[in-house]
Amino acid sequence: MVAKTAAMLLSGCGVRDGTEIHEAVSALIALEQGGFRVVFTAPDVAQPRVHNHQTGEREPVRRVLPEAARIARGPVVPLGSFSLDGVDALVIPGGFGAATILCDYAEKGSGCTVNPEVERLVADARALGIPVAAMCIAPVILARCIPGVTLTVGSRSDTALAMEAMGAVTRECDTDQAVVDVENRVVTTPAYMTATGPLEVFRGAERMVEGINSLLQ
Amino acid sequence: MVAKTAAMLLSGCGVRDGTEIHEAVSALIALEQGGFRVVFTAPDVAQPRVHNHQTGEREPVRRVLPEAARIARGPVVPLGSFSLDGVDALVIPGGFGAATILCDYAEKGSGCTVNPEVERLVADARALGIPVAAMCIAPVILARCIPGVTLTVGSRSDTALAMEAMGAVTRECDTDQAVVDVENRVVTTPAYMTATGPLEVFRGAERMVEGINSLLQ
Repeated sequence: MVAKTAAMLLSGCGVRDGTEIHEAVSALIALEQGGFRVVFTAPDVAQPRVHNHQTGEREPVRRVLPEAARIARGPVVPLGSFSLDGVDALVIPGGFGAATILCDYAEKGSGCTVNPEVERLVADARALGIPVAAMCIAPVILARCIPGVTLTVGSRSDTALAMEAMGAVTRECDTDQAVVDVENRVVTTPAYMTATGPLEVFRGAERMVEGINSLLQ
Repeated sequence: MVAKTAAMLLSGCGVRDGTEIHEAVSALIALEQGGFRVVFTAPDVAQPRVHNHQTGEREPVRRVLPEAARIARGPVVPLGSFSLDGVDALVIPGGFGAATILCDYAEKGSGCTVNPEVERLVADARALGIPVAAMCIAPVILARCIPGVTLTVGSRSDTALAMEAMGAVTRECDTDQAVVDVENRVVTTPAYMTATGPLEVFRGAERMVEGINSLLQ
């Protein structure tokens, strides 16, 4: 199989303050299965809130890079010095970090803005024709960055309505499936927006990677 | 499919100071695929060392439970109050936490001792006839707890020799396979002892769950 490279954009390590772990690993397995090696990048910023996943309490500050490196099993390239040279696809898993660090959707809803480095990354991917995939809540980033893009967050939820308010077209989608916008070269899968467990997330990730590969043919 | 329950024993969240994330998630996907729901437990202790996965530096103390809860996506039952009632299988992923928190193999080698709560959990599983599965380095725990058990850590490595010094029988095993000890009701898979990426780990986890299910028939 031809060796292709995917870049995964992380935002930490944990559903409530970073990258959703099951989504990231499901995507990693599916990407390797689909012929990709994966390189990792994340913004080099502090997490706005560190959430104790056992108690819900606030914990002392952590930075995004070393937490993202837990998922990557080693150093992650700071987004400010990351280049898409040699990269064939960009993948953005969900988790609360996608809505609080990569953009501020969790606070601002359809009035959200995207982290400038993330905005540049998505613009570069579009300029280069590199497919961009997003899982769970991460499609809100693409709703803001890509006018008129077609996306899914699974059901016809408040998030879907907010994405439409940002100018996106939304589609309903089963959890174990993915939606492909051929014109904009964007693939999205609902993941834990609607999933009840990791198997559905993984099946959706498999469809997402099939969608990426269909755009690369 | 009959609803079965697996208990996953965690030791944190990250390859260098806790549970290896890809292994845990691979096992979760494979377990759901094999008909299991999963409950989570972990020792309620401080991590002996928190490892910055980006820089290798030491970080301020963290406790095991809230980090394990990142993988579990919510609260984890403290091992001291965890019961195997209603549990059909016990699964222990690897990661450095398995060799520093669940037992002290990383420091003591074949002279290691097992956390008393972990020792009790494994003894209870054996008394109840519940299959026990372990990935990566976690088989060293079973080498210590189960006299004469047959295990794999993939290759004929120093770890295999140490397990033999503890009285275990070791088998070589491809990364995407698993070894079943029918008599002792134990299943092991090499995972990141030998894996080069998450897909092999996942395939091994699938074989591990097939092994568990073969013991439950």
